[in-house]
Amino acid sequence: MLKNDLFLRALKRQPTPRTPIWVMRQAGRYLPEYRAVREKTDFLTLCKTPELATEVTIQPVELMGVDAAIIFSDILVVNEAMGMNVEIIETKGIKLTPPIRSQADIDKLIDPDIDEKLGYVMDALRMTKRELDNRVPLIGFTGAAWTLFTYAVEGGGSKNYAYAKKMMYREPKMAHQLLQKITNCISAYIIKQVEAGADAIQIFDSWASALSEDDYREFALPYIKQNVAAVKAKYPDTPVIVFSKDCNTILSDIADTGCDAMGLGWGIEIGKARAELKDRVCLQGNLDPTVLYGTHDKIKSEAAKILKSFGKHTAQSGHVFNLGHGILPDMDPENLKCLVEFVKEESAQYH
Amino acid sequence: MLKNDLFLRALKRQPTPRTPIWVMRQAGRYLPEYRAVREKTDFLTLCKTPELATEVTIQPVELMGVDAAIIFSDILVVNEAMGMNVEIIETKGIKLTPPIRSQADIDKLIDPDIDEKLGYVMDALRMTKRELDNRVPLIGFTGAAWTLFTYAVEGGGSKNYAYAKKMMYREPKMAHQLLQKITNCISAYIIKQVEAGADAIQIFDSWASALSEDDYREFALPYIKQNVAAVKAKYPDTPVIVFSKDCNTILSDIADTGCDAMGLGWGIEIGKARAELKDRVCLQGNLDPTVLYGTHDKIKSEAAKILKSFGKHTAQSGHVFNLGHGILPDMDPENLKCLVEFVKEESAQYH
Repeated sequence: MLKNDLFLRALKRQPTPRTPIWVMRQAGRYLPEYRAVREKTDFLTLCKTPELATEVTIQPVELMGVDAAIIFSDILVVNEAMGMNVEIIETKGIKLTPPIRSQADIDKLIDPDIDEKLGYVMDALRMTKRELDNRVPLIGFTGAAWTLFTYAVEGGGSKNYAYAKKMMYREPKMAHQLLQKITNCISAYIIKQVEAGADAIQIFDSWASALSEDDYREFALPYIKQNVAAVKAKYPDTPVIVFSKDCNTILSDIADTGCDAMGLGWGIEIGKARAELKDRVCLQGNLDPTVLYGTHDKIKSEAAKILKSFGKHTAQSGHVFNLGHGILPDMDPENLKCLVEFVKEESAQYH
Repeated sequence: MLKNDLFLRALKRQPTPRTPIWVMRQAGRYLPEYRAVREKTDFLTLCKTPELATEVTIQPVELMGVDAAIIFSDILVVNEAMGMNVEIIETKGIKLTPPIRSQADIDKLIDPDIDEKLGYVMDALRMTKRELDNRVPLIGFTGAAWTLFTYAVEGGGSKNYAYAKKMMYREPKMAHQLLQKITNCISAYIIKQVEAGADAIQIFDSWASALSEDDYREFALPYIKQNVAAVKAKYPDTPVIVFSKDCNTILSDIADTGCDAMGLGWGIEIGKARAELKDRVCLQGNLDPTVLYGTHDKIKSEAAKILKSFGKHTAQSGHVFNLGHGILPDMDPENLKCLVEFVKEESAQYH
């Protein structure tokens, strides 16, 4: 039994005495304790060494008092498992070779045995789960198919997604074939994560806002929907969070994926999103990460504004406090601590 | 008298027989004719040489058949006029020195004499106006205060706007002082542009979507409002377009600046924006620039979708067809030509 299950109860829109909080990239470079581990090894090796991944996953739980842990890993492990060579030079750049741009390239991608290719993630989940000793829930995650597709086709990060969109607009069938192949891998992967101990799954569609509404409905949402359904078919009680960042004009379509919760960037007032969705899903977010550069007073007043904007909870509402994007590497950990403590105290009045 | 004034009539929401079209960065590297001029000189020198600026400004009018010309220049000339050293290495990066981060830095920025510091823009406008010989209207433009503020404070482009937001969140009075100083310069500059022959003014807030709704209302909109009012006070008939890219959840606030038209990125269906704004302003946009990577059939079907989404015109509606962002440098000019011709033909049925 979890000692603190506020996060899971909020995702399921069950009553909680206060709003739970965790933050994206909470296991990251802003923490001196993380940097100490990271000095010993490169980024991908850290992901692939369960002892180290476990250590950094638990750091923010102990140091910051967040209400959930998220397994330390990277979305691109899926591309790697499918047969691409992935290089991640933290803060510098990402390179995937070869870029996937033809039918032959797609055919060469494998449908991996998850235990064989991504067993290290399951090992890290099991080890973290053990070390957490039920203090807080553990989140597993994946990139969404569209985001992983852009990395595959571009061969790395991108400004305009020129190659990805060329394939979508000139060879839509081929694009869908690749998206489906990635989606199959994602579904198998997140099911395995649940089996290894993940209490909830977050699907990160980091580059969601590069697509028009119609393109997002055609090239992204159907695949996310498949992923959610795959988890729900086997583990209906495991909550799934979909983070389609900045897709603020199609919130309802995102809720229709069957997800339990939806992540929000800071581009929309959370109260407005709640009013539109009428508590069909839990909302997660949505403080601008740069607010943590502010004074403690500013951090508190902005956090208070979000709690107030979400408003009074009902028997069917759910809010997980988070940043609208990952915490920045040069942030003072004390500022995150200030946020976490403030949200825990301030939110009680709304429950 | 302008031979083709469709663009201005659309901005003023007056009836037109078809939808006018121009595209952002239409005078740019995708045109071999532009590259030929650009080979002779660097980017800022091109902006500062009226003969060359005139030549590239007119190229897309003649080669692509667009319904408006936009003066070839750069938004950062305002920062330069205020005393910053600006280096623009096209496609590579932008460097402004020194970055403006303290009261002393702000105090050192000058309130420039526009004719002295930016006279070359007025020369280029006058010369272009003459060379255009009333074929189509000429657009003048500026960056919005918030966007120019980010360049000033960051000392260049930025991913997270860390320094800009630090100033906003820790020293809001100082941030407002700098924004006001930039705003004063912008107002004087765009009035001069109208006097030199600009038939309309576009205000580009390129980094608008980095701000939350409330921050955009505090740190961006009041300054845009001042700029619009400054033009309108002297030249009430000159239309002003505000392009606050991807601020799709606060369309109504943007319309409240008093602008005649609003630019849209491709993140929202134009018909949805029209329904919300009820033809209070003309809408400009909003094709994803990467659609021009598609086949001619794809380009046409996506353009048709936008025209259909906007729908039937009334006596008070206005639509200027455009991309949701600048045309990309590696685009085939034939694809833009296909778009321009198609929009001209296809749009008539909605008028």
